[in-house]
Amino acid sequence: MIAPSTSLDHLESFFQSQQKSIRDDFFKFLRFKSISTDPDYKSDVLSCCSWVEEQLKKIGLETERWETSGHPTIFASHCKAGPGKPTVLIYNHYDVQPVDPLELWDSPPFEPVEKDGEVFARGAQDNKGQCFYVLKAIEALFDQEDDLPVNLKLVIEGEEETGSAGISAILKERAKQLKADYLIVADAGMQRLDQPSLTLGCRGIITMHVELEGANSDLHSGSHGGLHRNTNHVLIDLLSRLRDAKGHILVPGFYDDVKELSDDERSKIDFTFDSSEYREMFGAEANGGEEEFSPFESAWIRPTLEINGISGGYSGPGFKTVIPAKASAKISCRLVPGQDPEKTGILVLDYLKKQVPKGFSIEAKLDHGGPAVRSSPNSKGVKAFAQAYSEVMNKPCRFTMEGGSIPVIASLADVSGSEVVLMGFGLPDDKIHAPNEHFSIDRIRLGMLSIARALQILGE
Amino acid sequence: MIAPSTSLDHLESFFQSQQKSIRDDFFKFLRFKSISTDPDYKSDVLSCCSWVEEQLKKIGLETERWETSGHPTIFASHCKAGPGKPTVLIYNHYDVQPVDPLELWDSPPFEPVEKDGEVFARGAQDNKGQCFYVLKAIEALFDQEDDLPVNLKLVIEGEEETGSAGISAILKERAKQLKADYLIVADAGMQRLDQPSLTLGCRGIITMHVELEGANSDLHSGSHGGLHRNTNHVLIDLLSRLRDAKGHILVPGFYDDVKELSDDERSKIDFTFDSSEYREMFGAEANGGEEEFSPFESAWIRPTLEINGISGGYSGPGFKTVIPAKASAKISCRLVPGQDPEKTGILVLDYLKKQVPKGFSIEAKLDHGGPAVRSSPNSKGVKAFAQAYSEVMNKPCRFTMEGGSIPVIASLADVSGSEVVLMGFGLPDDKIHAPNEHFSIDRIRLGMLSIARALQILGE
Repeated sequence: MIAPSTSLDHLESFFQSQQKSIRDDFFKFLRFKSISTDPDYKSDVLSCCSWVEEQLKKIGLETERWETSGHPTIFASHCKAGPGKPTVLIYNHYDVQPVDPLELWDSPPFEPVEKDGEVFARGAQDNKGQCFYVLKAIEALFDQEDDLPVNLKLVIEGEEETGSAGISAILKERAKQLKADYLIVADAGMQRLDQPSLTLGCRGIITMHVELEGANSDLHSGSHGGLHRNTNHVLIDLLSRLRDAKGHILVPGFYDDVKELSDDERSKIDFTFDSSEYREMFGAEANGGEEEFSPFESAWIRPTLEINGISGGYSGPGFKTVIPAKASAKISCRLVPGQDPEKTGILVLDYLKKQVPKGFSIEAKLDHGGPAVRSSPNSKGVKAFAQAYSEVMNKPCRFTMEGGSIPVIASLADVSGSEVVLMGFGLPDDKIHAPNEHFSIDRIRLGMLSIARALQILGE
Repeated sequence: MIAPSTSLDHLESFFQSQQKSIRDDFFKFLRFKSISTDPDYKSDVLSCCSWVEEQLKKIGLETERWETSGHPTIFASHCKAGPGKPTVLIYNHYDVQPVDPLELWDSPPFEPVEKDGEVFARGAQDNKGQCFYVLKAIEALFDQEDDLPVNLKLVIEGEEETGSAGISAILKERAKQLKADYLIVADAGMQRLDQPSLTLGCRGIITMHVELEGANSDLHSGSHGGLHRNTNHVLIDLLSRLRDAKGHILVPGFYDDVKELSDDERSKIDFTFDSSEYREMFGAEANGGEEEFSPFESAWIRPTLEINGISGGYSGPGFKTVIPAKASAKISCRLVPGQDPEKTGILVLDYLKKQVPKGFSIEAKLDHGGPAVRSSPNSKGVKAFAQAYSEVMNKPCRFTMEGGSIPVIASLADVSGSEVVLMGFGLPDDKIHAPNEHFSIDRIRLGMLSIARALQILGE
């Protein structure tokens, strides 16, 4: 076991002395309704962006606002450690997911409430909580010394939840500014707080919209039932052919490019899964994958296809006896190394298109996407974070993977020429993307300490 | 061909002289947002009820408001023709369907607009237009004579679009008041205006709600994709097993009680169907039935199962990578003589329940329903209306059927001890239950003339 350093004591004191302002600032951050996918919230997203910029300036960083086709990206830097020190680029995002179904929230999603140390709000974890401790870590390092231990760059974007189109389009022209040795992605998590772990990979993603049309208007299910074939039924038929009963995706070629994990990599990853704990936490069975793979193998190293939304006809209160003119679905695939997002999405859409029966038309299009990311357990960046975690949490760090996606990361790593480290303090029951999302003040502390220590180790 | 009577000329003159007030009153009727299924419109439903009562009083009828568990039923009568004359009960409803999707309306649904003689508004046909010409027919008869040719009773309810639960529950206690020889249901239609036709039957209905739950919260499709089996997929799997590729409903026992049409009945019904006209009118193929039945056989004399609504996960703008905790469907079956609504609904729900996989729970319940109704082409009531149609439209009347349902009619016929006549001037492209519903002023005229003449014939 590694002994806690003096530096760690100093960082810990900083946190304890700043508790009130940390809580106040975090709550301010959470109050911005920075929902990137919905145009109605555009001004809220911009206000949130401005507030983050202010915080960065206060800490002592130089900031730039990079305008994009969508919401702006914040670039901040402090590169005075000298050429002998490494350059570290940290990635976060200030945008959040939509909040519906609103009625399932116990408290309003943009009015943070603290209960037993957990703060409930949209974005509490994903990603405002994890962005916030990065800012506090830098503040804590400046409190300890006049300079930072590394040359530091931050990229905080406003469109992660919609696929990072804006920042992705300008990455190449910003390549020089983004140049770094390490890319720290503070948007991941661990399975449990009593076992520090780092994430060696996250899956890629491709998202799709499908709309089926069978008539020029909604039709009465009495007069037309038996005449017109219901678009809901046709859509259901199509979608039911996407997966078999054993969890395999039936789209021809879907698995062709999957790059298998090496035995060495596999041996270093902890795939332990507790089904009864999962059942208790989510009220759900963990039997969603291909039957020949274990739960975490299915969630980390295998691709998936999920229908994220389906809608057709009347779903409001009461009953409406309609045969809908249109029915639609939103579909996403999580991808593993080897799979190209666009290619995979087109395979799925072509498979659906080919099966549309006579008299129906389909509008099928790709939305955002990005490839999978993998790190080596032997890389210098991963090792530094593993050491920092072990010091902060007083236990050796293990390695896991993540089923989620941060689509821009692969390109950001490529353009910046850096080695990726996926880190974070998310936990499985944080309810990200769902009602009652939460994150704890204590995890703000752990995140702050870990980032600060890891930067010190990288700068040694 | 039957020669138009002098009476018909008089009725026609009445219509011509009243054109402005007919249009004004009809538009007033259409402006009430009497959506019965949505509690938000309760006061609009009541205002509409009061307005109809006022009209009936103005015409010279005695009215009563029958309170029910839901929206009130209006009962009106004028029984001074004497015991030698038959008693005729006319059924209509003043409530309407919801209006969504609102964005597909070319003009606001409750601000009637007339274009080339067609009036566009929710309820323009179903059933305000058809109710309105009944009122005008009575007015026209009073304009001709001091008394009516028959003992007349009207029932105008406010919950037809939600299954008539309120009136159904009080029918028995009102049996004496409802006693009649003929029950005229002015809520049907014909295939084309150049071929007068009467409807010899309408199908029954049973409606159902199904909700599937697989987790205690919406889950992130990245972290949980491959772990949890998506509720959307499970629902789609279940629903895809309801019908086979040949249009047969796969629920065991579903067809067991179907009473086949006799050869005599079948020979009197015009099943002629024009697929290309249907395609042109609705932008849809007429291939929705069981493959061994023709389109109108499928729509009139065979039961159906339709998914009227399906909903699960995120369907708003943009994308949300969620695995929904719940997914739901609204299902309805149209029924033919012999099939009991409740029994059939339970068959469907039990079939679904039995197939729910481990880890998922289903909430499945019946909503409203009612059995099918059939009339004989040889009954006195049907013959009187056939004659009236032929006089008014100057062409012999034919017989068809209707795929839709008026759930309360079977009970109303039973309680009142009357012979049913299903009549009306609906046309297939009136877009009832859909955006841009419409009905013409000329059909108000035809309906008014036909009702008035038929009552005269029945009173002869």
